[in-house]
Parts: sequence; structure tokens; C-alpha cells
Amino acid sequence: MSDKFHDECGVVGVYGHLDAANLAYLGLYALQHRGQESAGIVASNNGEMHLEVGMGLVADVFSDTRLKKLPGNIAIGHNRYSTTGVSGIKNAQPCLIDYAGGTMALGHNGNLVNATEIRKELGAAGAIFQSANDSEVIVHLMAQSQCNLFVDRAVAALSQVKGAYSIVLMSENELIAARDPQGFRPLCLGKLEGAYVVASESCVMDLVEAEFIREIEPGELILINQSGVKSFFPFPKTPTKQCVFEHIYFSRPDSNLFGRSVYSVRMLMGRALAIEKPVDADVVVPVPDSGVISAMGYSEEAGIPFQMGLIRNHYVGRTFIEPQSQIRDFGVKIKLNAVKPVIEGKRVIIIDDSIVRGTTSKKIVKMLREVGAREVHVRISSPPTTHSCFYGIDTPDKNELIASSMDVEQTCKYLGADSLHYISLEKMLGIFGEQKGDFCAACFDGDYPVDITGLDESAKQLGLF
Amino acid sequence: MSDKFHDECGVVGVYGHLDAANLAYLGLYALQHRGQESAGIVASNNGEMHLEVGMGLVADVFSDTRLKKLPGNIAIGHNRYSTTGVSGIKNAQPCLIDYAGGTMALGHNGNLVNATEIRKELGAAGAIFQSANDSEVIVHLMAQSQCNLFVDRAVAALSQVKGAYSIVLMSENELIAARDPQGFRPLCLGKLEGAYVVASESCVMDLVEAEFIREIEPGELILINQSGVKSFFPFPKTPTKQCVFEHIYFSRPDSNLFGRSVYSVRMLMGRALAIEKPVDADVVVPVPDSGVISAMGYSEEAGIPFQMGLIRNHYVGRTFIEPQSQIRDFGVKIKLNAVKPVIEGKRVIIIDDSIVRGTTSKKIVKMLREVGAREVHVRISSPPTTHSCFYGIDTPDKNELIASSMDVEQTCKYLGADSLHYISLEKMLGIFGEQKGDFCAACFDGDYPVDITGLDESAKQLGLF
Amino acid sequence: MSDKFHDECGVVGVYGHLDAANLAYLGLYALQHRGQESAGIVASNNGEMHLEVGMGLVADVFSDTRLKKLPGNIAIGHNRYSTTGVSGIKNAQPCLIDYAGGTMALGHNGNLVNATEIRKELGAAGAIFQSANDSEVIVHLMAQSQCNLFVDRAVAALSQVKGAYSIVLMSENELIAARDPQGFRPLCLGKLEGAYVVASESCVMDLVEAEFIREIEPGELILINQSGVKSFFPFPKTPTKQCVFEHIYFSRPDSNLFGRSVYSVRMLMGRALAIEKPVDADVVVPVPDSGVISAMGYSEEAGIPFQMGLIRNHYVGRTFIEPQSQIRDFGVKIKLNAVKPVIEGKRVIIIDDSIVRGTTSKKIVKMLREVGAREVHVRISSPPTTHSCFYGIDTPDKNELIASSMDVEQTCKYLGADSLHYISLEKMLGIFGEQKGDFCAACFDGDYPVDITGLDESAKQLGLF
Amino acid sequence: MSDKFHDECGVVGVYGHLDAANLAYLGLYALQHRGQESAGIVASNNGEMHLEVGMGLVADVFSDTRLKKLPGNIAIGHNRYSTTGVSGIKNAQPCLIDYAGGTMALGHNGNLVNATEIRKELGAAGAIFQSANDSEVIVHLMAQSQCNLFVDRAVAALSQVKGAYSIVLMSENELIAARDPQGFRPLCLGKLEGAYVVASESCVMDLVEAEFIREIEPGELILINQSGVKSFFPFPKTPTKQCVFEHIYFSRPDSNLFGRSVYSVRMLMGRALAIEKPVDADVVVPVPDSGVISAMGYSEEAGIPFQMGLIRNHYVGRTFIEPQSQIRDFGVKIKLNAVKPVIEGKRVIIIDDSIVRGTTSKKIVKMLREVGAREVHVRISSPPTTHSCFYGIDTPDKNELIASSMDVEQTCKYLGADSLHYISLEKMLGIFGEQKGDFCAACFDGDYPVDITGLDESAKQLGLF
Repeated sequence: MSDKFHDECGVVGVYGHLDAANLAYLGLYALQHRGQESAGIVASNNGEMHLEVGMGLVADVFSDTRLKKLPGNIAIGHNRYSTTGVSGIKNAQPCLIDYAGGTMALGHNGNLVNATEIRKELGAAGAIFQSANDSEVIVHLMAQSQCNLFVDRAVAALSQVKGAYSIVLMSENELIAARDPQGFRPLCLGKLEGAYVVASESCVMDLVEAEFIREIEPGELILINQSGVKSFFPFPKTPTKQCVFEHIYFSRPDSNLFGRSVYSVRMLMGRALAIEKPVDADVVVPVPDSGVISAMGYSEEAGIPFQMGLIRNHYVGRTFIEPQSQIRDFGVKIKLNAVKPVIEGKRVIIIDDSIVRGTTSKKIVKMLREVGAREVHVRISSPPTTHSCFYGIDTPDKNELIASSMDVEQTCKYLGADSLHYISLEKMLGIFGEQKGDFCAACFDGDYPVDITGLDESAKQLGLF
Repeated sequence: MSDKFHDECGVVGVYGHLDAANLAYLGLYALQHRGQESAGIVASNNGEMHLEVGMGLVADVFSDTRLKKLPGNIAIGHNRYSTTGVSGIKNAQPCLIDYAGGTMALGHNGNLVNATEIRKELGAAGAIFQSANDSEVIVHLMAQSQCNLFVDRAVAALSQVKGAYSIVLMSENELIAARDPQGFRPLCLGKLEGAYVVASESCVMDLVEAEFIREIEPGELILINQSGVKSFFPFPKTPTKQCVFEHIYFSRPDSNLFGRSVYSVRMLMGRALAIEKPVDADVVVPVPDSGVISAMGYSEEAGIPFQMGLIRNHYVGRTFIEPQSQIRDFGVKIKLNAVKPVIEGKRVIIIDDSIVRGTTSKKIVKMLREVGAREVHVRISSPPTTHSCFYGIDTPDKNELIASSMDVEQTCKYLGADSLHYISLEKMLGIFGEQKGDFCAACFDGDYPVDITGLDESAKQLGLF
Repeated sequence: MSDKFHDECGVVGVYGHLDAANLAYLGLYALQHRGQESAGIVASNNGEMHLEVGMGLVADVFSDTRLKKLPGNIAIGHNRYSTTGVSGIKNAQPCLIDYAGGTMALGHNGNLVNATEIRKELGAAGAIFQSANDSEVIVHLMAQSQCNLFVDRAVAALSQVKGAYSIVLMSENELIAARDPQGFRPLCLGKLEGAYVVASESCVMDLVEAEFIREIEPGELILINQSGVKSFFPFPKTPTKQCVFEHIYFSRPDSNLFGRSVYSVRMLMGRALAIEKPVDADVVVPVPDSGVISAMGYSEEAGIPFQMGLIRNHYVGRTFIEPQSQIRDFGVKIKLNAVKPVIEGKRVIIIDDSIVRGTTSKKIVKMLREVGAREVHVRISSPPTTHSCFYGIDTPDKNELIASSMDVEQTCKYLGADSLHYISLEKMLGIFGEQKGDFCAACFDGDYPVDITGLDESAKQLGLF
Repeated sequence: MSDKFHDECGVVGVYGHLDAANLAYLGLYALQHRGQESAGIVASNNGEMHLEVGMGLVADVFSDTRLKKLPGNIAIGHNRYSTTGVSGIKNAQPCLIDYAGGTMALGHNGNLVNATEIRKELGAAGAIFQSANDSEVIVHLMAQSQCNLFVDRAVAALSQVKGAYSIVLMSENELIAARDPQGFRPLCLGKLEGAYVVASESCVMDLVEAEFIREIEPGELILINQSGVKSFFPFPKTPTKQCVFEHIYFSRPDSNLFGRSVYSVRMLMGRALAIEKPVDADVVVPVPDSGVISAMGYSEEAGIPFQMGLIRNHYVGRTFIEPQSQIRDFGVKIKLNAVKPVIEGKRVIIIDDSIVRGTTSKKIVKMLREVGAREVHVRISSPPTTHSCFYGIDTPDKNELIASSMDVEQTCKYLGADSLHYISLEKMLGIFGEQKGDFCAACFDGDYPVDITGLDESAKQLGLF
């Protein structure tokens, strides 16, 4: 019943707008890249809260009829990422519950490292769990709080959890948004004609034409009600550890995160790669879409032409059925195709954001050679991913990560590339200047900023307890 | 968020059969009349429990693909009745949860009268509720029990609830079936090649070709595990109060309930009506399907020919869209049509199982007169329904019950009938002979066997707490 | 691509009503028993014709949204019967086409015996066929007519086809309804506030509250346009040969067909059975639903109590998935269950409308014996079905019909019954009095009123040509 | 009933492969950009042809179950483009028909200019039409041919049609592929382990790993059967007039068409734009996805940095529901968002493939100014679109084309841009070198290579005839 440890998601919250659910819907649309498995919205109408949720893309889940079932001027929405087959409608969010204090709903992006531990404790006290979501842990803790105010319950609950969370939380008449003390996941605040909008990424503000106010700070909790917006910093101060992968891969390039433009950071990563490990070549080709910006940066810095030598089929990634039978495995070909006139006879530099298992990269190198690449040099805009993420990015187990068992040279050989270079951790973090210490790089160096010892293997394998 | 107080449902459980989920599926098929809103099955395969659930009829919810996702030799299934629009996938059953003791699933038929009270208590202690189901109350209580054994937890939980329940309950490796001390709702046990089957009605045993062993007794809890079947009577003895409406209307006529054949009871009710209030007439016509058997009994006793003078469209009742616009309201015509040659020029006795609001009966009388009925005499095989049911039958509020505000004469006038007679409570219960005291007749006399004072109006209106 | 020879269907047409499509929808609802595979409606709005069609039941195909796409004051509708798996959306009706004269739509109930021949001829002249429907043959012939008037084209086309048809046909501004010269299939005319309604059965008039005017006569074609209703008898006069199975089984008992009430005819069939072959017994039990009325007639005549000793699950017949695996075949049990207290220890007379292959009847006899029937006497309200129907009823090939290879005694033995009697052809037709010669009884005596020699086996096997 | 004149589509055909339908499925996947409204495949298995077709994307239409219904070693597939709301399942292709010669199926990309005329003639001879597809015209003509051989029928039919077509055509055991004499639409041939593949674009060959053999020539018809591949040039020789918009916009950049790489042509168009109308600027930004390659070419030529200053939401374009109510129109914002750090304070050159109505371009200019663009220079990699296309590209009516009523200066003002330049026709065609005369540029100069006088307005408005 448990598919936790992987909670890449998008969240949005709206307070004080007559079309709250419609705005939440648009917000989820802009955040679709953060989760395609399920989508849900809860709206509050004069104290009555209603949930509409379904499996699939935002546009498929929400018909006009369903949106009309969500009147009210407060709403939260959630996109969930598809990880394994274990999931289902019971795991879709937001989570809407009744408790002693009334009704509340929660949408969560991130991953709690002590969720299992808390579940055990809550379980020992008789709690039950209907999903594998960390959301459920948080609402349990809120319900158990002896505080009267909704915001105090939220503080009480969040004080007990460890790990990554950016959450939107609503009662019948209040909206709360909060980021964990390390600030792993992004969350920002905007304003729209007297209404407030919170969202995982700033691209939501652009779409709904809200004014971007600022990011919610690491460790900050914001309460929005009829008195306006109040800010709290209720947790002990800890070093900020924002997720560098949000910049490398996960967020949209038109978003601003952790004080930086994703686009600009990726450009600089590309430039840095070119500086760190120059190579004589004819063309710089990104693995689309995530490698595009870095490849442009590389190209600019190196003075080697940028070309879209790999074309991505944007209709893939949804429900492709690999045809059975005699036809061979199509793998990466379904998604990517090489452009022969760009590649043939050329020395090609390929820019990708990361290498996980190495299988896809190997196929790309092969595909390029098949259309006549003379040399293939692989450049990666992140350091070798040697460790799993426990703070909300869906990385496989350590032993499936190629960089955890092969050094760069071995990996290069495995890929069949002429050369391979990952950006160095220092160089990459250097891009953030003074803030370089404010980032989590655990997947590269294994230096986990929040203790993960509670997450032992046996716990994973036994499920919930 | 609450649509409780109405939990007419069907439950089934299977232990020890390689095709447990398939048998549960067949059982739900046979119990489809008990609930058409949603259907769900949980199966346990080597300790791993999986739920498949969806909105709609059993045949629509369970494709072959979904049934294949339910391997294992223990399964429970549940059909839910469609009451109001408040419901949704979150209220569908069975309820599958993780708790300190492991994983369990529950399907519930009935209605707890102290659920609100217990929710308040549980809520005060910090519990959260994700549905409006009484099932969730029970699993909470089980999870909070300090007992180690699954069966002891069940006993502990059920000792605290009051009201109507027939439940199926499973852990990873055990199946429990229980009926409340009054025995409001039916539940029976069967055997199939070494496997055990429990189900709301005996017609399930006929379909799956299981041997009907016996009914679960009021107040009995049965534990089925690898040691076989064990019976417990853990609750204080109280008078049996089985629901007489199961015989009047709700159950299938080919089922045996509370020691009697539903078919035979309905025949006797028809006979009793004929004896109590004879009338000179030409034809006895049932309101199909529920009035058919009683009408046959009436006909036999009175010596007046039985005729199917009203034809029912069996394709209705699912998703009929009343066309908007100029077309007038079609009401009962969509479901029933009169057979002119049977009715024209005749003195007609109409047999129905009950009158709730009176609007349908009024339309039927009108329809019969339009095709030429000379006289229309209405006979009802139950006493006037003057009180709402709080034990699991979906009756409207008292003030919507015609019999709570009009006497028989007034009702007759309202219906436009030439005469109206309800069977007397004594006569009806008399059919059960010595067991006449073992039935609940609260909807006729307001004598509620289980205290409903906890169910005050304010509680209903405020929702959960 | 061909699944023809089986075109049991329901048709409806509306002229001159602002809610034409909505009325057609209601009409299809009332005719759902005539076809459950697909449903479609064409409406004409100021000369623009639009089709909405889909697989499944009327209520599933037509959402409110789809009905709104069908404005206009002329409409025709069609329900199609599910026969084999060959069918699909391309075979669904009505058929909507453009041709030299404009646009037209056709819905057809029946089966043409010279369709293959005409297809060959049309094909030789270059025609193409996109479905296996006889409708397509008729619209081809209409399009090829050199006549100018829509009605003349219809007459020209229908003059060339042989076999069974009751059709509704519309142009942008006219509605035509016609029955073949033998009048195999029913069709009737009603009036509703200045609008006209035509439908396969009179029960449609009851539902839409139209006044039943009369049946369309065999060989009659009715033209409805802004000048009112005009009647034509354009075909050479031939003996009327209405389908007796419409009364025996196919139509709703609340319909009037061929000048008779279906209900009354079935009652008389039951009575006739009792007179022809009396047997000493305790109870008369119908095979529901089609045997119910005849069983009541038998019971009345014989003075043996009528009982619903077999209960039908009305939720079956839609999409039941026979669970694979170890579970044995459930066959008739899914649909029917015996009521033990009615049957046990009794001498039972079972009334069914017909025996086709005999397998279901055999299972019913077995089921009755298993619950303790002392004797089982089978009585059939139609003569032995020895020949296939080629005029629109879906009977299997002759060699699958038990009565074509076994005499009554052998069949009785096969069924495991104590006695078996079919009503005699004379007795059955005698019920229709002077009109007895107006009925087709080809399935009983092989005396096909319309030559079927064109329908040779090779044609069937080779498909269309 | 008619939505013709717009038949942008993708076609694929497979001969001689055990997994013909699966390969066709993959091919349709690669051609999804050519049509998203419906998808269909016909396969032939030992002379029996079967069609599976549905509304929506290839991945949504074809479940594993549906693919399994398509055994056989010959198959054709078709993607249809969504144009107006008039369409529906009846217009989906391939078209599968029975005729005197057997069964055949056809998939068509293009638009016939004399279809209305032929329909009239066919109609006058009695033909009927069930769709608005040109496919139906062609199969009619084939069926009417007196030839015996399938290929001769195809030649006879195609000799009568005028306009644009690239078709795949199959009988029970042969596959035909043909391009019209002008060669408006692309079509190519590949080989895969003894099997043959034909497809609209060469990217299909890459995906299914077939060897690209060559393009089908303008006016060429290829017959593939057990004797191998035979080529025919049965039509009078006419000047080649390939659609230049296939290179500008419609085809995938990784395809080769008309002897050229789409990618390379777009690069050269970008370069040409930079040469023709240089402008001092800071950044070159494409309107994704279609402007990307040209923008790279421009950037290279002009030495101005290329940046992805507009980000496209690839989840849009399917079923986005514009929320009603108070929220203002979101228009282009749903699809595109500007990247502020790329644009702010910059002089921006925007590269797009074409301007149709001008409304989207206007919004883009506005969006760029809102994020701080100092100057916005619009460059279009095609000449002004002044005329509608009648050969298969879905351009609106002439009077909706901004370039048909405004000159460049006026348009620039309307867009709010600082400057606007369209590539000149000569420059654009010059890219094709000696072949410059082989292209149709009717949408730019109104010089229609195939007479369109038959396509008068009245015909369009009256529908089919």
C-alpha cells in the first residue's frame, strides 16, 4: 500500500477570489510538469468544503461540470507524480478530512523522512492510515494537537515532522502555506486583485496574471485569512538546503526559484561545463527538453554552434503502449529521434541534465553514431548522481545509479562515448555565489542535511510500519 | 461531507478459495439490488492487501483487468447504495487501512446510531475522518484497541458501537463476519469446497453454488482462519430486532432471512391483506417488482385474478436523463406503464409494499384511471410508515412521510383512490409466529429499540461534529 | 464485415415538435428491449441534419450535452440489437447520407432477403458499402432513383427490396414511415399536440403521452410534412404475414401490435396450452420475464396456482464478465435463481416462450430438481422452432435449433423433464381468429412467405457478395 | 455535414510484416503532429479486413486490446486533424468499404479541388456519401471503374481527381501508395526486413527502424504485393508543385521531404531572414516549437545570441477548458510564457513561421513588452500569407488573413512591433536552388497550380452539392 519516498508534486492555493477553483485549475495546468498521475482541487464555499479528484492530466480530470462543483473563494490544488503501479485514487491529493476542529484539506510536495516513525507512533496510539501520503501524517498530527487555532495546529504538526515539504493547507475559511526549515521544495506568493495565490513555481503567477510578491522563506508559514497575510517563523533556525535539482531539471525554465531564474542558472551551468572541460567539436546538441538551456550556455561559452540535433515527440510520455510481439524494444526512439544532417560527420557534444541508470544515455549515443556522428562527447550539467534523494525527487535506489558503482571513465566506456564530463559540484554550486551553501547536494555527495537513518531498508520493505 | 444515516448495502466475504475475488465479484452481482452507487473488492495475497473500487454497477466497475489485480484467497466485497449527491469515490467501500496491527479492510451494511458521538470522542482524541462511512468509525476503534489479536480488536470496537451492522472484516490472513446484537441486518454463512462464504443474503450461496450453512446470529461474531470457523457471542444479550423491511421490500424474494423465506413471507402478507380488508374487485395488480409476490398472495386468498397490469421498464433506474425543455415531467411513466386491456373497465386492486411520500402512488392511481380503471383500491403490504429508519434503510425525514401527517382516509383522498388499506402491524408481525417479537417495527410505531437520542437534528445538520 | 440477417431493432420518428430529438430519445428508451448494442438519433434543424450515435444503452449514449447537439423539429432514432462481435460503430444506425437530392437519414427494423442480390447489382454498377446494414441498401436505391420527390424515391427503392422492414426515413423537411407489404415488423402512428410520432411499438405513445392513432398498414407508406399526413399503398398487394414472435416474445406486453394487445395474446396462449395438454401439478412457474403472462393464463385456465418460482437478476444481460479460472461455468445461474419454498416437493409446470438450442431449458430443469421439484413439466407458448427466421428475428442456424433435429419426446428426454408440450401451430394461430392467416409462421413450418433462395449458404459465408 | 477543404493528416502503410498493425500504430505515433482528432488502422488477415478507429490521440484510441483485434500482415493507418466542430466518428479514417471487387480501405492526406464536382456527378448517378472525406470520393470512383485489377481501379479513379493527395490504399492482399501529379503532400517508402513501409514523413522510418528507400515521386503510384514493389507513372506529366509549408511549419524537423531535410531548410530560412533584413538587437527568440530551427539559423547568421525566451507548455493543445466566469481570457498565456531574465531590457528579435490572423502574434509582442523588452522585432520565415490553401493546409478564409488586407507596415503597427519582416518569396524559394520552381506558393502569391474555380463560395456554403 505504500509508494512513498517519491512525492514530486505541484501545489497551488488561492484565497479570496470568487473563482478560486478556476484559478487553482489554471495553476495546476502551469504545474502539470510536476505531476501527471492525478489532479485534485478542494474548494470552500461558505464553510462547506468539496473535493474533486481523478487520475490523469489536469485537462482530463476537470471537465466544466466538475469545476462547477467547486464554488467558493478559497481553494487548493495538487498534481501528483506517477511513480509506480501501486498508486491509485486513494493516494491522490489533496487530502480532505473531518476532525474535531472542523474540516481541512492539505496538498503536499516533498517527502518526510520521519513519516514512518510518526506513523508508528500515531499507529501505536491507534491511528489509521488510508493512503501512503505524507499529507495524511500531517493532518493526523494537526488533528491531535490540543491547540484551538488552525494555524497553531499547523505549527504543532509541522514542528514534529522532518524532511521536505512545501504545503498548502486550508480550513473552511483560512489558507496556510508553509515550507520546511531547510526549504527543500519551492513555494511562492502572489497577489491578484486583492486575492492571494500561492504556488510551487512562479510560472503560475504569470499564467493567472498575479503579481509575484516573493517566495515563502525556508521555515516560514504564512496564514491568509480575512485579516490579510501573516507570516510566522515557528521552527528552530537551521541551515537552508534548497534542492539544486529543481534548478537542474525539475522546474520550468520560466520560473524563478530560490531567488534565481531557472533559465539563467541553466545557462550558467552550460557555460561552466564548457569552461571546465573544453573539447574540440562541431556542434552542441541538447537532450530535449531539459538539456536545452544548458546546451545554449555551453554553445555560447565554447563558440560551438548549438543545434537541435535530437527531436522530441511531445505526444509521448502519456500512455504509450509498447507493442508486444516480434517488434523489438523501441526504448528511447519513441521519444527522441536524431536529425541526420545535423549529426552526420560531426563531432557532437551532447548536453543532458543528469545520468541516472545510464541506459537512456547509452541509447542516445548509439542513435547518434548510427546517423553518422564522428565523435560523441557527453556533458552533464549536474555532478554524478551517486545517492538517492529522500527529500522528494524520485531517484531510484542507490544500487541502480550508475555513478554509485562506476567512475567517470567506466561510465564513459559503458555509454560508448568518446568523452564524458559531469560538472563539478563546486562549479555548479559556485553559480549560486554567496548562496552556494544554501543548497542540498546530497544526491551528489551523500551529505544528507536531514537525518535519514529512520528510513532503513527494512522499513521500506515492510511497508508502513 | 456527510451523507450517513443511509447505509443500505450488500456485503460478501470469502475465505480459503483461490478465486476469492472472483467469488466476491459474483456475490456482489447477486447483491446488486442492495446498492448501485459503487462497488469494491479487497483481496489478500500472501499478506498483501489490494483494493479495487469504482463508481457504478458491479459489472461496470470490474473489468477482467481489474479482477486480475485481485489475486489471493481471502476477499471481501461491498455494494453501496446511491442516496444523495454528496457521495463519491471517497465514500465507496470496502475501507482499506494501515494501522499499528498491520492492514485491514472492512465492508459495512447498516447504520450506527452512536457514530456521531464516537466520532466526537475520537475526534477529541485527535482522530481524522476521510469519509462519512460508519466503517471508518469501526476501524478507528479497532486501531485504538490495545488488544493484540485481530478478533479481540474487532470485539473491542464493536462493543462500543450501537445500532445496525452486518460487517465483513479482513486482516492479511483472517476473515471476520459479525451482526449487531439486535440483528437488524441479515448475514449468512456458506461453504464451498472447503472455502467459506459470508454474504448479506442467501441468494449469493445459490449463485456461487455454496452450501448454505446458517445465518450469523444476532450478536454473533464469526472468525474464519486456518483453524476453521470459530463463533463468539461477545456482547451483552439484548432482544433480537430484525428489520421487517428486509422481508417487505429490500431483500431478493429468493433469499432466506431471519429464518424465513422472503418469498413465503410476502405471499402471507398478501393473504393477510386480503383477509383484513376484503373488497369486491375484478383484478389484483402488483406495482412491480416489489409488490408482485404479495399481490399473488392476495389474489390466491381473495380468489380475484392476478394480472401484471403495470409493466416495468427494467432499463430505467440507472442514468436516465430527464430531458429538459418543453416536454412535461414524465415521472413514473419512465418506469411503469399500464396495460389497458387488463385495466380498462375493471375494479382494480393495486398491491404495493409501502407508501413513502405518496407522490408515486398518486401517479399510479392516475395512470390506471386514465386507461379506464373503474375503481382503484390500494393495498399496502406494510403498515403506514410514520417514522424514519435510523438502522440502515433510506427513508426520508419524518415530515416527508405522508403517513406521519395524514391518516389513512386523508391519504386515500390524496392518492385519488377508492379505498386504501395498510396491513396492520399485528397482522404483519403475526406472520412470523412466535418470532413476532424479534422484529424491529420502529418505522411503523416509533418504538426505536436502540436509543437514537444521540442523533439529534443539530448533529445531522452540522455534519460530522 | 457482415453481420446481417439479424436486425431486430427499434425505430422511432418525430415530426413537428420543438423537442423532436428529446421525444425520439424517450421513444428509444421505451424500445430499449428491442436493441441494446447501439443507439442513435438524427435531427433536422432548418435543413441541417446532425447525427449522434454510440455503442451501448440509450441512457449511456445520450448525455445531456449530446441531446443538445440535436436541435430541430424532425428526428428519427434507432436502437440496434447486439448479435455477434462483428458489429461496431460503423454498423450503428440511423444511417445519415448525402446524395444528389440532399441529405437523408434512415432507421431500419427488419431484414431484407434480397439485400445480397441488390448489393451485387449495385456493386456491379459501382456502389460501395460501408456497413452490413440493409439500411444502406435502401438509401442506395433511393439515391439511384430518377424521381424528384423524396417520397417517390422512397417508393422506387422499397419497390425493389423484398423481405421485412419497418422503416423511418427523413429528409431535411419530411418524415416517411413504411412497412413492407407482408407487414412482418410492427410500426404505429401517434399524435402529440399537433406533432406526429411513429414508433415500432405503441408503448412509445404511452410514454411520450401521444395519442395512439393507428398502426401503419402492411404495405403502407406514410409521408409527413407541412401539409400533414398522407398515406400511400404503392406496392402490389400481397397476403399479410405479420411476425407471430413479436407477440410470443419480442414486444413489450403493454404494447398493441397487429390489432391485438400483446398481453392478451400471451394470456390466451397460456390458456390454450393448459387446454391442449393438461397435467396434474401443484404450481405453474414462468421463466421470467417472457413467460410470465402466458404462465398466468395457464394458471387461470388450469386452476393451478401461479408462482414466481424463478427469480431473474435484472442487472444481468449487460456486460457480465464470466470470471475465468477455476470457477465453473455459471450459465443460467447468473440470470435466474429458483425459489426453494415454491418448488420443493412440488410438481412444477414451467412456462417458457420458446426453446431454441435447449441448453438453457435443460439447466432450468436441473436447477428446479436441485431445489426439490418432484416433477417438472415444460410447456412452451410457441410451436417447436424448426426453421431459422430470415425476416428480422435473431434465430441461430437451423442445425442449432433443437426442434429441427429432435422430436418432442427426444427433446423432453434431453431436457430431463417429466413432460414437454409445445402449443400447436393451429391452436396458437387460432387465437388470432379470422386473422390467423395474416401471420408468418415460417420458423415453425418452414413455409417462408417471401422467397429466401437468394440467401444461399455460400452468400452467407462469403460475406457481402 | 461537410468540413472538407481541410485534410491535414498523416498516413502510414505496411506490407508483409507479421506485426503490420503494430508498425502502423508506431507510425501514427510518429505522425501524431499531423492530426490529433482521430486515429484509425485497418489490417488484413488472410483476406479479412478489420477496422479500429476512434476519436482522440493515437495513444488513447489504441489500447492493447484494440491492437490485438488487428492481426494480419498488411495494414494502413491514418491520423486526422481537428478542424471544426462538425467532424465526428463518421469522418474518421481510414475508410473501409465493400464493393464489387471485394473489400478495400483508404487513408488520404490532402484535398481534392474537384471533389464537389465529382460528388455531384457521382450523386447524379445515384451515389451516396456518408462522410465529408475526399477518401470517399476516391473509393467511389474505384468501385465504379470497370477494370479488374485493384491497381487499375486505383489508376482509373486517381486519373479523375484533381488536387492534393498522398494516399495509402489496400485490398485484401495488396498495398498501394500514390502521390498526386503535382506532389503537394509528402509520402515516402522504406524497407524493414523484407517488409515495406510507406508513410507521410521519413521520421516514421527512423522510429520503426526501417531503411528509408526514397520518396514516392509526384504522380507516382506504387503497388506492393507478393511480387514485390512496382512503380507506375500513369498520369499526364505536370509541373511539380510541392507544398512549401510542409517545410515551413507542418512536418517534423527530423523528417526529409521533397529531397531536403526539413531541419536544414528551416536553418537556411532563418539565415535568409537575417540577411534580407538585418536589425540591431540583443537576442533572437523563437516562438516555439515551429520557430526554433529558423531562429537558430537567424542567430548564427546575424551573430546575435539565440535564447528560448518563450517557454511552451506542452500539455496544452489537447482539451484545455477555458474557465468561464470572471476570469479574463487567457489566450496565448496558456501555451506560452515569457522568460523575464532573457527579455528584460533587451532588443528582441522574435522568429515565427507565419502570421495568420495576427492575433496571437499581437499577444506575444504584448507579453514580451510586459516583461520589459526594449524593442520587439518580428521576423517571419515565410512570406505574407495572403491566400487560402485549397490543397490540404487548414488556412482560414482569405478575409481572415491579416496579410490579405494589411500591408507589412500596417501589420507591424497592428502587432505593436518595432519592425516586421517576412522573408521574400524569391529568397525563400531560392533555398531550394534549382528546384525552386517545384514548389507551390499559392498561399503567398495566389497563383494556384491546380484550378480551384470549382471551389466557389456557394459550393462551400451549401455543403456537399
